[in-house]
Amino acid sequence: MTEGSGNINEVIKLVSMEEHSDRVPEWLRQRARLTGSRLAVIGEGVTWTYRELDERATATARQLASLGIGEGDRVAVLSWNCPEFVVIVHALVRLRATLVPLNARLTVPELAWQLTDAEVVLLVHDEAHRDTAVAIGGSRPELRTAVLAESGQLGALNGVDQAEVALADSMVLDRPHSIIYTSGTTGQPKGAMLTNGNFWWSAMGSALNLGLRADDRWLACLPLFHVGGLSIPLRSVIYGIATVIHHGFDALAVNRAIDEQGVSIVSVVSTMLQRMLDAHGERPYPNSLRCVLIGGGPVPEPLLERAAALSVPVVQTYGLTETASQVATLAPEDALRKLGSAGKPLFPNELRIESASQAASAGTVGEIVVRGPSVTVGYFNRPEATASAFRDGWLHTGDLGYLDDEGYLYVVDRRDDLILSGGENVYPTEVEAALLAHPAVDEVGVIGVPDPDWGQVPVALVKPKREHDLDVEALRAFCRERLASYKVPREIRMVVGLPRNAAGKLLRRELRKYWGETTS
Amino acid sequence: MTEGSGNINEVIKLVSMEEHSDRVPEWLRQRARLTGSRLAVIGEGVTWTYRELDERATATARQLASLGIGEGDRVAVLSWNCPEFVVIVHALVRLRATLVPLNARLTVPELAWQLTDAEVVLLVHDEAHRDTAVAIGGSRPELRTAVLAESGQLGALNGVDQAEVALADSMVLDRPHSIIYTSGTTGQPKGAMLTNGNFWWSAMGSALNLGLRADDRWLACLPLFHVGGLSIPLRSVIYGIATVIHHGFDALAVNRAIDEQGVSIVSVVSTMLQRMLDAHGERPYPNSLRCVLIGGGPVPEPLLERAAALSVPVVQTYGLTETASQVATLAPEDALRKLGSAGKPLFPNELRIESASQAASAGTVGEIVVRGPSVTVGYFNRPEATASAFRDGWLHTGDLGYLDDEGYLYVVDRRDDLILSGGENVYPTEVEAALLAHPAVDEVGVIGVPDPDWGQVPVALVKPKREHDLDVEALRAFCRERLASYKVPREIRMVVGLPRNAAGKLLRRELRKYWGETTS
Repeated sequence: MTEGSGNINEVIKLVSMEEHSDRVPEWLRQRARLTGSRLAVIGEGVTWTYRELDERATATARQLASLGIGEGDRVAVLSWNCPEFVVIVHALVRLRATLVPLNARLTVPELAWQLTDAEVVLLVHDEAHRDTAVAIGGSRPELRTAVLAESGQLGALNGVDQAEVALADSMVLDRPHSIIYTSGTTGQPKGAMLTNGNFWWSAMGSALNLGLRADDRWLACLPLFHVGGLSIPLRSVIYGIATVIHHGFDALAVNRAIDEQGVSIVSVVSTMLQRMLDAHGERPYPNSLRCVLIGGGPVPEPLLERAAALSVPVVQTYGLTETASQVATLAPEDALRKLGSAGKPLFPNELRIESASQAASAGTVGEIVVRGPSVTVGYFNRPEATASAFRDGWLHTGDLGYLDDEGYLYVVDRRDDLILSGGENVYPTEVEAALLAHPAVDEVGVIGVPDPDWGQVPVALVKPKREHDLDVEALRAFCRERLASYKVPREIRMVVGLPRNAAGKLLRRELRKYWGETTS
Repeated sequence: MTEGSGNINEVIKLVSMEEHSDRVPEWLRQRARLTGSRLAVIGEGVTWTYRELDERATATARQLASLGIGEGDRVAVLSWNCPEFVVIVHALVRLRATLVPLNARLTVPELAWQLTDAEVVLLVHDEAHRDTAVAIGGSRPELRTAVLAESGQLGALNGVDQAEVALADSMVLDRPHSIIYTSGTTGQPKGAMLTNGNFWWSAMGSALNLGLRADDRWLACLPLFHVGGLSIPLRSVIYGIATVIHHGFDALAVNRAIDEQGVSIVSVVSTMLQRMLDAHGERPYPNSLRCVLIGGGPVPEPLLERAAALSVPVVQTYGLTETASQVATLAPEDALRKLGSAGKPLFPNELRIESASQAASAGTVGEIVVRGPSVTVGYFNRPEATASAFRDGWLHTGDLGYLDDEGYLYVVDRRDDLILSGGENVYPTEVEAALLAHPAVDEVGVIGVPDPDWGQVPVALVKPKREHDLDVEALRAFCRERLASYKVPREIRMVVGLPRNAAGKLLRRELRKYWGETTS
């Protein structure tokens, strides 16, 4: 019964060859055309409409072009949150260049490594990172640098001329938008490539879950260099809503933005929510706050219950850099009934639990695997890592969880060894590698231990080499030169040996017991 | 500065070859999994959740499979609006078959032509079209038929067994969903192929414009066989909201659905709005009605003003079968400031005015051309019609309009010759062809004239052959056998000649003057 079915596909193929459905108008330009007078960015002393943001992005794209940036080039941004960060993000899209947002907390060696790995040609940084940029430049003289301007200027780069160039008026969905580094179990960070389409589908999936109102305002107090922050202004331009940008997280400022500035959605991690509630006291939050999106790991149930009692609409999510932020989110109607769950996949995504390469049954803990159009196309220059993370299009997250009998996801633990510290991921192997670089260190094991402020903090057990005298404080100072401060072990204890299996593999679970039994 | 830029594209290409970002979970199955207890379809005596609709679609897909339907097959539906129509739509997706919705007002010859043209293998019809189906079957004995079941049954086909088959769990975006016939200036209807992606992007574009609320209810009183009706249950399943289905348009029933059933969005054409307001009197509509979407041609300004005075949130749109419904829509904030405009393109679309193959300046009337991922991939089995409609990916609509200096679209006139009659398009050439088939007709010209109830109705000027005596009523009866009743000329006048240019082409503008000067 399929005699004529050949030709329909042929015609579709013909038209598809012209990339018919693979291209959308460039988001910011389109938004400025459609609803140019709506607010786009609200920051300290800054209130830009989409029309104004559009003008700034054009001026900045021309500045970047005068520095030689064009299609396919990779440009890193090293900055705390500021409105100019958003301008750069859009300017790069207009040049079809790729954004590489750098974690502003990293040390010079860590940053230099990522800049080299991503083959970055230009480093844009804020004033706060001027010394860092100079230090990086010392070892990479071919790397160009530019400084972010004060908000008064039209172009976001300080003192850079504009070049007349043609700017992209459309976005091809499967072309790269950003490369965002995420550490791996190997301790070697990998750059997850996120396409325009990944961010588009992520924005759509989120809207289909949370709904969408023209007067929404989404607060970005998470760093824009993490996917959870960066996705906020990208969603906003697609939705036509305002992003409220905070330099960093400040519980009082967040509460003020909700109480006085009409912020309706805010993305935080659980330690931030804790501080917000502490600072807000018994006063209820206004009705205009319709969603507090919580990512970055499991939320303690007492905190969820406290928020529920104060009518704070908490929505727990599960997300990854590799999925362009949220991949599963608890639907608002289930927020109370399924306390502690990360909900169900967003509409365009699939999620399942794998145990021994098989789909696990309800209630069985296994690896969380996800598939869908917001999932990364792979790791930059890492074909092997990409191949090992994907099987049949499913991304293997390394995180553990289970589905209840209604299909709700409960994240049991991030990757076995991952330490979640105040919204940052710390990979023990990376910290161990830094410690092992010290000439007096023989063996080392790093684990996370509970911390009232940060959720977890890293600590280390070190076995010194024979005949070496090891000073703990010197060792921590050694770490500080090589590692962002949140990765530096809060405490280091000396041991005479570490628990390993027959193959010599470190037994982290044993290590945790070990830590509990030793004393500093 | 692009030394390393090759490999990023290679990796993306590699992953794309697995159709990584080209596939989404099958909409209804996913919706049933995510929010299965939400209402999906509300009809006469019917209230189905998404879980229930999902079960019915599965049962019906198995019925269709037992009739031999599989991937790539084309199945026509000939029915007035009913919940089972929606079930069939989803069931076909599960089999990767293509829906061909037929205009329930067409005559047997018109339907038979479309069934042959679309290479349809199965005709599903409601009870009301049993005789029509029998008559069609007379000339096409190889065509199978099936009758829609009463709502009490799980499978939507009456008395058909279920076959155990594997059903699709995902949808490939660039595969066909439907073929919908639209007449052309040639008088020959063409089947516009709409893909899963066309409907997806249309739904997204609409949500980005109108916003999205979990408690929205969208009323389908437009026929589901037109794209404006069909797109409502498709958007609803993606959004997770309920479609309220009316058998046909009834102003009192529409008002009741808005006043009592929480309908928040309704799609109508302007004559319907007129009757709704007439029936509602001075009573205001409830606040829960947040959008009355008006398509099907320009809306008279007095009607828009009357609606505005009654606080009816009227949103004028411009859409085509070829764009999977709305392509431009007036943003809510502009509804009053830009009375009479069809607004701006939806976010994923581009729209411009062409005059002499050039982009026209503001205020200049020209042809409306559109581009974007919700635009049809072409006409089924009509490579030439497809090629002539598209240039550089832009669909040339044949409709006339202009953009004001703020970029708002004003539709001046649908295709020069198109007659808009109560939400149906009537193409004069098609009516002329029917009249010319009469042995006594020598020449004919059909135009639209204003009508208080329908907006426009078709009328004909006929030049009889020498020595033939022509009876007007006999000629109308001749038309009724060949044309749907809304296409039959309301009035026919005999003339001794028709205005033509030197090349013999009918001058329709002159024809209108002519009509005004003649009397019946």
